[in-house]
Amino acid sequence: MQNWRITLSYDGTEFFGWQVQPGLRTVQGELQQALERICGEAPLPQGSGRTDAGVHALAQVASFALAAPIPPENLARALNRTLPAAIRVLAAEQAPPEFHARHSAIGKCYEYRVYTGSPCSPFLARYCWAVHWQLDLAALNEAAATILGEHDFTSFAASGPDLSQRNREGAPPNPVRIISHSHWQQAERDTLIYRVHGNGFLHHMVRNLAGTFVDMGRGFLPATDVDAILAAKDRRRAGPTAPASGLFLHHVDYGDSPEADCTAEFLS
Amino acid sequence: MQNWRITLSYDGTEFFGWQVQPGLRTVQGELQQALERICGEAPLPQGSGRTDAGVHALAQVASFALAAPIPPENLARALNRTLPAAIRVLAAEQAPPEFHARHSAIGKCYEYRVYTGSPCSPFLARYCWAVHWQLDLAALNEAAATILGEHDFTSFAASGPDLSQRNREGAPPNPVRIISHSHWQQAERDTLIYRVHGNGFLHHMVRNLAGTFVDMGRGFLPATDVDAILAAKDRRRAGPTAPASGLFLHHVDYGDSPEADCTAEFLS
Repeated sequence: MQNWRITLSYDGTEFFGWQVQPGLRTVQGELQQALERICGEAPLPQGSGRTDAGVHALAQVASFALAAPIPPENLARALNRTLPAAIRVLAAEQAPPEFHARHSAIGKCYEYRVYTGSPCSPFLARYCWAVHWQLDLAALNEAAATILGEHDFTSFAASGPDLSQRNREGAPPNPVRIISHSHWQQAERDTLIYRVHGNGFLHHMVRNLAGTFVDMGRGFLPATDVDAILAAKDRRRAGPTAPASGLFLHHVDYGDSPEADCTAEFLS
Repeated sequence: MQNWRITLSYDGTEFFGWQVQPGLRTVQGELQQALERICGEAPLPQGSGRTDAGVHALAQVASFALAAPIPPENLARALNRTLPAAIRVLAAEQAPPEFHARHSAIGKCYEYRVYTGSPCSPFLARYCWAVHWQLDLAALNEAAATILGEHDFTSFAASGPDLSQRNREGAPPNPVRIISHSHWQQAERDTLIYRVHGNGFLHHMVRNLAGTFVDMGRGFLPATDVDAILAAKDRRRAGPTAPASGLFLHHVDYGDSPEADCTAEFLS
């Protein structure tokens, strides 16, 4: 068996998220079907993590093993011929047997896109959160800087039982995460881009951070509240969950691609 | 009754074209329903022309009359609150009674986008024709320049009976059109953009021109063949119909907006 690592980009609008679900169109399911059509083998590709319905990926990573001997260029080409245009394989590489897209990841970077113009172009609407407020970039960045370092992110995690993140013994996940990059930038065409890099993220964490920061950027909450929200360990203290359409998995960090940092522009 | 002129942009991917059709989602149908919800009146908005299924618009124009007195800013805002995000009203203006989006138009400009990179990003795929050939810009422009001026475009019109373009007496449409701009440019990210301005276009004409020019840009047909193809007045002599996904109605010319020329960039 050969272990494989593929990097892929997808428009999440048309999928019910990453994870395979009976009767629903998912990215993992489409990949598995494409592999079966190409090789006659149907391994379930393991992603670096799940993305929710409507969430996009600029460079998601998945791993799987195949018995069939295939040159890497051919595998990428065959997948792109077979997959829908909303999923593209950017690279396919042979990986050492121990590589696992989720277990080997040491960090991840997400991008959240907010559009503040009016009206929001139909060609952007699927790829941003269109808001009706003007946002103060300094306030956004004051708030964003507060989460740098190690914190308990319970207040920014999806409330309710999060079975998907429980470990094999059924214990709830450790809510402490280390954030090494958290920054908003003004981009062209009334777009604000937030990028956050951490050693891991709780369910809905980036969307809850984005929703809270936007509340601060529009002056609805003071940017200085982030510390108190973190300390409260209570989801009700933070702002709303920002919509899935604005969220992109920017890249996955395996410690082996120094160039893939949080300032890389994949989508302009 | 007040006559209205609205300018609108739409992502055509999700619609069965402009024209209202029973049981199908169309741009004209969505607009009519939105007007009915807002004003309780359901005039059928007249477009500058029909766009086919999957064809986009950057600045389509439509006209209709309403009895309800509405300030123009309110009409645009109310339509954008009611319409799906894939259709946006860019402007709503009160128009003189004689204004008719189709009859008053003196010209139109279309844009056709071809992507020559690999793979084509999922975020671009809906808005271009992704080809696997490298294209010679000089050959594209040599071919494109040939159609400038007045020509019979029968060879570039959809073959078969084109009832949609017959006049009231059932006569076939006049296939002569005057083209005042026809130019390809290299844009960022492996995109080539063709813009063509004419006093009118036959059914599928821009897509048939784009498909033929691409055949010339990739060296499959000599660029010097355009004259002979025009002279043949035979659809079979021209190249394939390029896909709807790459086509955008760029703007409609009423002789009143000198700034809206064919070099304006609406989508970057």
